[in-house]
Amino acid sequence: MASPAPRRTKFILDEDRIPRAWYNIVSDLLANGIQPFPPLHPGTGQPIGPADLAPLFPMALIMQEVATDRDIEIPDPIRDAYQLYRPAPVFRAHRLEAALDTPAHIYYKYEGVSAGGSHKPNTAIPQAWFNKQEGVKRLATETGAGQWGSSLALAGALFGLEVKVYQVRASYDQKPYRRMLMETYGASVVPSPSNTTNYGRKVLAETPDSPGSLGMAISEAVEDAASRDDTKYALGSVLNHVLLHQTVIGIESIEQMAMAGEEPDVIIACAGGGSNFAGMAFPWVGRQLRGEGRYRIIAAEPAAAPSLTRGVYAYDFGDTGMMTPLVKMHTLGSGFIPEAIHAGGLRYHGMAPLVSLLKDQGLIDAQSVHQRASFEVGIQFARTEGILPAPESTHAIKVAVDEALDAKARGEKRVILFNLSGHGHFDLSSYEKYLQGGLEDFEYPADKVAAALAGLPKVG
Amino acid sequence: MASPAPRRTKFILDEDRIPRAWYNIVSDLLANGIQPFPPLHPGTGQPIGPADLAPLFPMALIMQEVATDRDIEIPDPIRDAYQLYRPAPVFRAHRLEAALDTPAHIYYKYEGVSAGGSHKPNTAIPQAWFNKQEGVKRLATETGAGQWGSSLALAGALFGLEVKVYQVRASYDQKPYRRMLMETYGASVVPSPSNTTNYGRKVLAETPDSPGSLGMAISEAVEDAASRDDTKYALGSVLNHVLLHQTVIGIESIEQMAMAGEEPDVIIACAGGGSNFAGMAFPWVGRQLRGEGRYRIIAAEPAAAPSLTRGVYAYDFGDTGMMTPLVKMHTLGSGFIPEAIHAGGLRYHGMAPLVSLLKDQGLIDAQSVHQRASFEVGIQFARTEGILPAPESTHAIKVAVDEALDAKARGEKRVILFNLSGHGHFDLSSYEKYLQGGLEDFEYPADKVAAALAGLPKVG
Repeated sequence: MASPAPRRTKFILDEDRIPRAWYNIVSDLLANGIQPFPPLHPGTGQPIGPADLAPLFPMALIMQEVATDRDIEIPDPIRDAYQLYRPAPVFRAHRLEAALDTPAHIYYKYEGVSAGGSHKPNTAIPQAWFNKQEGVKRLATETGAGQWGSSLALAGALFGLEVKVYQVRASYDQKPYRRMLMETYGASVVPSPSNTTNYGRKVLAETPDSPGSLGMAISEAVEDAASRDDTKYALGSVLNHVLLHQTVIGIESIEQMAMAGEEPDVIIACAGGGSNFAGMAFPWVGRQLRGEGRYRIIAAEPAAAPSLTRGVYAYDFGDTGMMTPLVKMHTLGSGFIPEAIHAGGLRYHGMAPLVSLLKDQGLIDAQSVHQRASFEVGIQFARTEGILPAPESTHAIKVAVDEALDAKARGEKRVILFNLSGHGHFDLSSYEKYLQGGLEDFEYPADKVAAALAGLPKVG
Repeated sequence: MASPAPRRTKFILDEDRIPRAWYNIVSDLLANGIQPFPPLHPGTGQPIGPADLAPLFPMALIMQEVATDRDIEIPDPIRDAYQLYRPAPVFRAHRLEAALDTPAHIYYKYEGVSAGGSHKPNTAIPQAWFNKQEGVKRLATETGAGQWGSSLALAGALFGLEVKVYQVRASYDQKPYRRMLMETYGASVVPSPSNTTNYGRKVLAETPDSPGSLGMAISEAVEDAASRDDTKYALGSVLNHVLLHQTVIGIESIEQMAMAGEEPDVIIACAGGGSNFAGMAFPWVGRQLRGEGRYRIIAAEPAAAPSLTRGVYAYDFGDTGMMTPLVKMHTLGSGFIPEAIHAGGLRYHGMAPLVSLLKDQGLIDAQSVHQRASFEVGIQFARTEGILPAPESTHAIKVAVDEALDAKARGEKRVILFNLSGHGHFDLSSYEKYLQGGLEDFEYPADKVAAALAGLPKVG
């Protein structure tokens, strides 16, 4: 018989190793004297309390939003649904390393194994379950390219909740496959701006051919939820409880790197609203805050929507319609609409408040990446590792490859861990556009950024 | 902390449990006095030898085609590439069982975890590697919906071989995402019939708007390979060596069912050319041939292309252009073209000779399934288990669900194992058509079958 397989490629945990608690970084921040900024009521400028959020969210999620305990227990029915795809594997990228001829060791956590094809079900499942427990019948949400919408549609199907999705019109028109997936899971999908909300009708009256934006779609979904007793709102990123749910990624990866017998020097994830970045990074930042390790932790964001690297750290609205509470975050202004030329997700105007706080405190770094360079390494990754990455995830690959090439130039061993947040099966038209030379790079111009920032609300 | 997760969902093997040898069922057939029929030369009617196949295949694969050893060693570089996605998980379908309210236990082996999204890389990888070992620079092949073409494109990228794919025109035009995937992996794709082969030009001269068929595309790829010194041909199903490579599915599943502590009563896989069916079934048939177990083993085929249930067992060509050797198989005639209304794969006119032999010997059963019923259970599966199944795989789900409901009606416990051969991410337009009521059932008419069979070659 053959000799043993020459090298280990996957680090897989048994399903009884699905974390029993989410990791709440607020606990370790407070222990280090770092105080998160509260959300403010847009009318009064005063901190909002749980009751202010009750029209939109079930109380269990509101309590997670303000929790200060380090470990938040994951109920068994949620762990049971996580078992459909978790724990997610960590891969050693032997073939990519060989192609780069680098001494670096490259590892990636692969969240595309979920039925939604990305990390998004990590929070869609608990959000649906906690809503169901409190008698909610219907969830309203927004989605861009559709990773979040299809994940919430799946979670709704698993727990018997109706799901209404407001999808950014540009994606609705150009990428029909994710809409079809949402509908196959039983969700109802309309393009945003739509004529089913007051806010949508207002936008359409002013701009009938509006391509929509995430900020607009959030306004519509919030209005839908606020106006119906049987309906709550679900958000796929930004909020504390969403980031909390994603920490299963990083918690598992700590155990898997121990299986691999290596400690990462650099940890990388792409960042749009910040949830997959937080999911990977927070448990590692927590180790750092507790003095258990030292890491360089990098958020990879697109040059076309560079909130962490070009925005300001200020109180701003989460949506375009100015209906949400004000949160302190790195923002490009709530009126920001990324250029249509930008192919992937990661189009949100702001960054999650907790991620923004870590950046402001110097606990993490950020780099902006152009999309052509991202697609280039995305294709190299597909041809070596097999998996076709989501365009969003290619931003993280680009930073990882740059790190690996830097290690090669310096002749250093370096252990790199990045989060491959999803697959690109529904994004092939963007790959085709890249291969045909039709994708251009776009750096959001300084004057536009300045104008957007000048319009920030005067509070906080 | 929470109590342990309430039930086990996944049975996952560590990567050192990737099989070290493929299982060659010919060995156990011969031991039971069952002799496979040799392929015949279409001109002489005499059995062909290895030299006859040498223009099309590397010698290592030809020797596998005629091997009689029970275990065929898997070389380490192939096991290393298998590690990118194998071993594939076995799932217990707890949520589907609950939805059906059945006492049956339903298990499925999920082959959609591969980068190609189906079982096809199990043979694409060894085919590319063995060709590379013998100095081949370029592979030509055919594909329908594109599962096979994208898998060979991936394998070509992994081992540095050029890949040329002749894709059935109907699929090329209607389902562009798999073409884009093949091109992202670096393959060159043309619609078949094409004007790049003599056979393609002949078809186009007669029928300029021909939608193509797998049989036609095989003729084009065979002609391409036979006419170029640097090129060999690769087939994604039907041949003995292809079925052999797929047996990793069944070998792993035997170990995984032992992990689950259950012995299956019924084993099910869908069947077009027969490779995923063989991959799942042969190792279990082998146990039966050796007196180690008793199972009902069912091939699920579409009513629109019912070779096992409606064809005859006779010598026929593998392609439409009558260039291939004659093989004894269940066939609808090499001129068979399934109706365009049939949405999924499983469109081939014949069935793999080894699968046909088992059917003829009564060692396996077959059932034909209509596509609307298949999509219906496919959607139920997606909404309960999360995974969106390939339309092909829904045929197996349909038979599994029927078995589970029969067990319920009889009040019997029954252990059902089926192969979920791939995901349906690139087939969402078919799901949408079904949801919009646009899919019809089609039973291939008796007179057409009879006419096709009347044209069978007069040999054997």
